[in-house]
Amino acid sequence: MVRINELASISEDEGCITRTFGTEPFVEAGKKILSWMKDAGLAAQIDNIGNVRGRVVSSKGDTKTFIIASHIDTVINAGKFDGPLGVIMGLDVIEQLIEAKGEPPFNIELIAFSDEEGVRFHTTYLGSKVVAGSFDYNLLEKKDAAGLTLKEAIKLMEKDYSRLNEDAIISEDLLGYFEIHIEQGPVLYQNNVPVAVVTGIAGQSRVEITFNGVAGHAGTVPMDMRNDALCGAAEFIMETEHFALANKDAIVATIGKLNIANSASNVIPAEVICSLDLRSANESKLLIAYQTLKNICAEICARRNIIFNWNVIQSSRPVACDSELSSLIAQSIEDAKYEVVELVSGAGHDAVPLSKVALIFPY
Amino acid sequence: MVRINELASISEDEGCITRTFGTEPFVEAGKKILSWMKDAGLAAQIDNIGNVRGRVVSSKGDTKTFIIASHIDTVINAGKFDGPLGVIMGLDVIEQLIEAKGEPPFNIELIAFSDEEGVRFHTTYLGSKVVAGSFDYNLLEKKDAAGLTLKEAIKLMEKDYSRLNEDAIISEDLLGYFEIHIEQGPVLYQNNVPVAVVTGIAGQSRVEITFNGVAGHAGTVPMDMRNDALCGAAEFIMETEHFALANKDAIVATIGKLNIANSASNVIPAEVICSLDLRSANESKLLIAYQTLKNICAEICARRNIIFNWNVIQSSRPVACDSELSSLIAQSIEDAKYEVVELVSGAGHDAVPLSKVALIFPY
Repeated sequence: MVRINELASISEDEGCITRTFGTEPFVEAGKKILSWMKDAGLAAQIDNIGNVRGRVVSSKGDTKTFIIASHIDTVINAGKFDGPLGVIMGLDVIEQLIEAKGEPPFNIELIAFSDEEGVRFHTTYLGSKVVAGSFDYNLLEKKDAAGLTLKEAIKLMEKDYSRLNEDAIISEDLLGYFEIHIEQGPVLYQNNVPVAVVTGIAGQSRVEITFNGVAGHAGTVPMDMRNDALCGAAEFIMETEHFALANKDAIVATIGKLNIANSASNVIPAEVICSLDLRSANESKLLIAYQTLKNICAEICARRNIIFNWNVIQSSRPVACDSELSSLIAQSIEDAKYEVVELVSGAGHDAVPLSKVALIFPY
Repeated sequence: MVRINELASISEDEGCITRTFGTEPFVEAGKKILSWMKDAGLAAQIDNIGNVRGRVVSSKGDTKTFIIASHIDTVINAGKFDGPLGVIMGLDVIEQLIEAKGEPPFNIELIAFSDEEGVRFHTTYLGSKVVAGSFDYNLLEKKDAAGLTLKEAIKLMEKDYSRLNEDAIISEDLLGYFEIHIEQGPVLYQNNVPVAVVTGIAGQSRVEITFNGVAGHAGTVPMDMRNDALCGAAEFIMETEHFALANKDAIVATIGKLNIANSASNVIPAEVICSLDLRSANESKLLIAYQTLKNICAEICARRNIIFNWNVIQSSRPVACDSELSSLIAQSIEDAKYEVVELVSGAGHDAVPLSKVALIFPY
């Protein structure tokens, strides 16, 4: 907690925690973590995308590496546990492990990822994508709000963007990946349980839906002669909620944005644009939900004489966590006399890009 | 049609018709109508609020006055028939009446009202309220977008705002009121009928409703742990449409505005503000609809753990048109071999303030 609070005090904003990629507070926080890693005896350095990486190298012959990681960048006005918890606890775990058991039979690497939130350059997972070897070099030209490119931001950290590929790990060297993160939902808090096993990270479909009806005077168009775009959208919102509630163990669905074009209290809405955010850890259920909701939308609009446009903004597949590693975590929770709760992470994490190179845990 | 098009050419904007109260095009249009009235032999003048008023004074002893009227101000980008049709047709009716039947047994006054739309000063019925003697003198200090007061606008027309009371008619002198207006809905157009009898002007309730739920991450809050303000609003929209459709012969209900505070596609909406526009020509049905929808809203919000605020913005009672005058109009339509259709006007008209002083037609 002392370290969590110390990190929380390093911020771009006074009065709240904001520490976006490449800023002075970000560099300061990275150096702080580097020193903590070194104090704990890890061979630590900062790579070219700003990840802080500390290794415990085993001399026992097994050259594979087990990664423990989370991120140290933040959103604007962040919670102090979002990211740093996994890095600081990772350091504690490694220190206690070595103290209790001596040198491990495999290498361990602790990584403080530099950019999970993607606030500054509107990207995601810059740090972990470099480690996973899936960094998109086109992103180097992306600009922040001040017009500075990612390339320039890396240079200002005195790092070399042309050598990002050297910071990737090789899939064959990876033994496993473990990430600790504070829950970003209400389940554990409401059940008064402090810890859970995350069995997977939800896949996501983000869609922008446009409903086009016919405008009209609110006083003069009879109810049965209307093509009200908002009523169409409202019916879709209700059906989406209904479907998601009926499948609540597998999916969540949210309409977070809704705008009526040229809205006025006495005009029947002609055009409504809304978002749909659909998530599930189960890929087939995600696909079924997506297709069902699209069909429902088509049916509503056909019946109401409303034209709709279904525009997919983003689509990502679910990631399943390794079941044997998950069992070990469940066992540990049980040993500590806590109820074992399984959760799906509805939010994305650095574990997502890492899953592309992670091998099945070889027990 | 020649006159309609001539008036339509007098506009503040090029390419569309905009002629708001007190502007140069407005004054020009008024003078044009004044000259047409004089050409037709009416004793015409422009009163202190800018109404153009032409009288046919009967010498046959009956001193009461029958008013034919509509408005000559417009909304921004108006239709050319909205207002002027009733003035120009009124002039035709009077000319043909005198030609066919000679001097009428009562006085006739044709009025081109100066401000029905209220666009410039965000008012309603300035012209007809002066005639009805119900003008609110506090409005004189109201300012337009440029900061000019209504008082100053009246002065710029070379009129005297201190003498507005002299332009009011006396209730006992009013024989009846007749207003012709283009339909502002689709009923006649879709049924290919050119004319109808308006039996009343709808009363209206305008409400602003705020739904307050709980914000949350779209990926991490399970469906059954949400208090989604937008889902609450959507359910209310559906129930409102359902209720209004079930009562479609008596009411119309419209949600024309809806805003989500701080909306984002991955955030469960915490606050939604929407409008409700409810209209009926039947006062008791309007009241029942209003109370039913308020109760439905309360039920939805209680069930969903959403706090709602129901803020009445405007409330006006329905106006019933005189049944004997309406019968005469129906008879005329039948004589002209058209189907007699009865309509309720969902939009307001100058007839509304005039109804306050109109006597029952004395047949």
